[in-house]
Amino acid sequence: MLGKVSYGGVTTPAGFRASSANGDIKGKKAERDDCGLIYSDVPCEMAAVFTSNVVKAAPVLYDMEVLNKGCKVSAVFANSGNANACTGAEGLKNCQKIAEVFAQGLNIKSENVLIASTGVIGVPLPVEKIIDLKDVLIDGLADDNGINFAKAIITTDTTVKETAVCVETKSGIITIGGCTKGAGMISPNLATMLTFITTDALIDKKILQKALNECTELTFNRVTVDGDMSTNDTVILLANGMSGTKVTENENYEDFKAGLLDIMDYLARQIALDGEGATRMITVEVKNAANNEEARLCASKIANSPLVKTMFAGCDPNWGRLMSSAGASGAKFNPDITDIYFNDMHYVAGGKIIDYALEEKAYNIMKEMQYTITIDLHAGSGYAKFYTCDLTQDYIKINADYRS
Amino acid sequence: MLGKVSYGGVTTPAGFRASSANGDIKGKKAERDDCGLIYSDVPCEMAAVFTSNVVKAAPVLYDMEVLNKGCKVSAVFANSGNANACTGAEGLKNCQKIAEVFAQGLNIKSENVLIASTGVIGVPLPVEKIIDLKDVLIDGLADDNGINFAKAIITTDTTVKETAVCVETKSGIITIGGCTKGAGMISPNLATMLTFITTDALIDKKILQKALNECTELTFNRVTVDGDMSTNDTVILLANGMSGTKVTENENYEDFKAGLLDIMDYLARQIALDGEGATRMITVEVKNAANNEEARLCASKIANSPLVKTMFAGCDPNWGRLMSSAGASGAKFNPDITDIYFNDMHYVAGGKIIDYALEEKAYNIMKEMQYTITIDLHAGSGYAKFYTCDLTQDYIKINADYRS
Repeated sequence: MLGKVSYGGVTTPAGFRASSANGDIKGKKAERDDCGLIYSDVPCEMAAVFTSNVVKAAPVLYDMEVLNKGCKVSAVFANSGNANACTGAEGLKNCQKIAEVFAQGLNIKSENVLIASTGVIGVPLPVEKIIDLKDVLIDGLADDNGINFAKAIITTDTTVKETAVCVETKSGIITIGGCTKGAGMISPNLATMLTFITTDALIDKKILQKALNECTELTFNRVTVDGDMSTNDTVILLANGMSGTKVTENENYEDFKAGLLDIMDYLARQIALDGEGATRMITVEVKNAANNEEARLCASKIANSPLVKTMFAGCDPNWGRLMSSAGASGAKFNPDITDIYFNDMHYVAGGKIIDYALEEKAYNIMKEMQYTITIDLHAGSGYAKFYTCDLTQDYIKINADYRS
Repeated sequence: MLGKVSYGGVTTPAGFRASSANGDIKGKKAERDDCGLIYSDVPCEMAAVFTSNVVKAAPVLYDMEVLNKGCKVSAVFANSGNANACTGAEGLKNCQKIAEVFAQGLNIKSENVLIASTGVIGVPLPVEKIIDLKDVLIDGLADDNGINFAKAIITTDTTVKETAVCVETKSGIITIGGCTKGAGMISPNLATMLTFITTDALIDKKILQKALNECTELTFNRVTVDGDMSTNDTVILLANGMSGTKVTENENYEDFKAGLLDIMDYLARQIALDGEGATRMITVEVKNAANNEEARLCASKIANSPLVKTMFAGCDPNWGRLMSSAGASGAKFNPDITDIYFNDMHYVAGGKIIDYALEEKAYNIMKEMQYTITIDLHAGSGYAKFYTCDLTQDYIKINADYRS
């Protein structure tokens, strides 16, 4: 059903083009591009998910209004290096100005342009530098530039994160492509994370939002790097219908959602894997909790615990910290019947290590770049999964002087 | 009303003696004492607060039973190096055995002995090593040994934490002394923290527990080093009445509580100051939240945020992270009217920095070993205060290979 497409990201689906340019947004004369544009030849239906932080950056407030108005979307401007957050009324005005300038250049309406920003909080956006890039970005639009757009939006990321997938439905092929940035502040309920997903599916706005909500809950809301939630988190999903393949509630919905989930799950895992200073990605799986909510609580607590995450960094198979962290989560369970597995290895039974000789095997598993820890609470049938990473000295180094 | 007494800790109040000894509990041939005993010539009324972790260590379960039975308490045995947690039925049996051995040596009942442990989770307690110390510990009991008991219970702590206070009431003087250990896993709702407080007040068990609960909420429940909550957290408060000064609900209660709060506040701040790898202690104060609970949520979120705590480490006056963290806390407020102060310096007004020139002043404040950050939400009259510390590379170093 699903076929992976190498490279391309947001420009893989039919009708999408992208570009990137260097606007020196942070004012540090960086050598790489920090601004990008996505454009669709045909106006798109739009779905989006935003940060639930009370403090929302100007571009988030701006895009929320576009979404609420129900406008179609033709273009997305994005920049790294400055979050345009905590910038007050001036910040919103700057979003409006950027939208107007690009709309004029693209011969569309300003309400058809979305804005996304990521970077330092509390510094006025250098809007003139962005406006100066108008022609370069518009002239540079090309259908193989998804990778360059993906590169332009990263901040402390060490990898570019993009992917695309083909979905074969009964009525025809749909392509979905996406890219994301995010490495720090990644937490339950989004992250300093910008995600752009494009598709050529022919789909109604309501169904598009439904699919996005369902997939977000299972992917981006389950990634944690440091338990923080940013002012700018945004997931934008655009559908331009150019494949001609219809998706409705009764037609091809499950196929489309499977493709979307595949894209989003891949991007979410890439974020955990690229957690600031992280050297490995760990999947924390809680099963047989009293219910799904308690499973989520428990997996989230473990995935967010600095003590657990430093233990991951040191490859120390200290199962007691897992027990303790589960116990602190608020989930109800009996520790005396709890099981813990490292990958497939049964390590803890009835709340105690099965055999101290297993510690070395557990250590070897923890040396791997990716592994799974499963906690079986035997308290019901609730299930949840979180992606997390180890907490290393480099995390501190990166964040203690982020702005300098 | 209050007079500070230097040194002495738990042995400062009349009738309390203590001792310490080296039992090599961790099996690493440490050179310092790791076992301690507190003894009161007169049986004490007892109050206590324990971890709310679902996974409770054996000594916690054991002490909870003593408390529930309403027994008087004459002695407390404590050890570091092993938490006796996740040790199942065997762990509880070991507590019973220790209580019996010391009760026999002290000529009291085993139900008059409390047990407290801290250290590695999931390793059987070397109970024979403890029993071997019976005579040394009992013979060593002395009324100036509070400091040595305090030294014996520390783990990753870099400082010994003890204090004592005299309270002058209308009816006479009461002395209160205390010591604590705790550096990592300190979090809202207690910590891997053992605290022992003694007093010679003549006070009813019910009033004693009431005072302890009220003071815990304002002190130990407001300390955070890394947001974790341990299996062993215990605060024990013993009152032997030997001053003859009565405390009842209507008589001297406020004086007694002021003294207790003074002791507990001091010990709590010492814990934050000694956070694993920490180089400075920060008081996070939230005022004018919608209510006290939202103030607590907001202060807790900021005090626990790894991004904020790394910013403290780097002395980076990145007020945007404070805004973002407050916004992620669940407290409701309008970011556009929020104020932030660094000590007395008004730094952010209306959700924006007042003047970029203030950054250098803020940086200088952050270089201090202790300072206060105040967030005024202008949303009501709720207030809360948290003690936290910076998150440094040393935290990772300490915890990545705690067991090795």
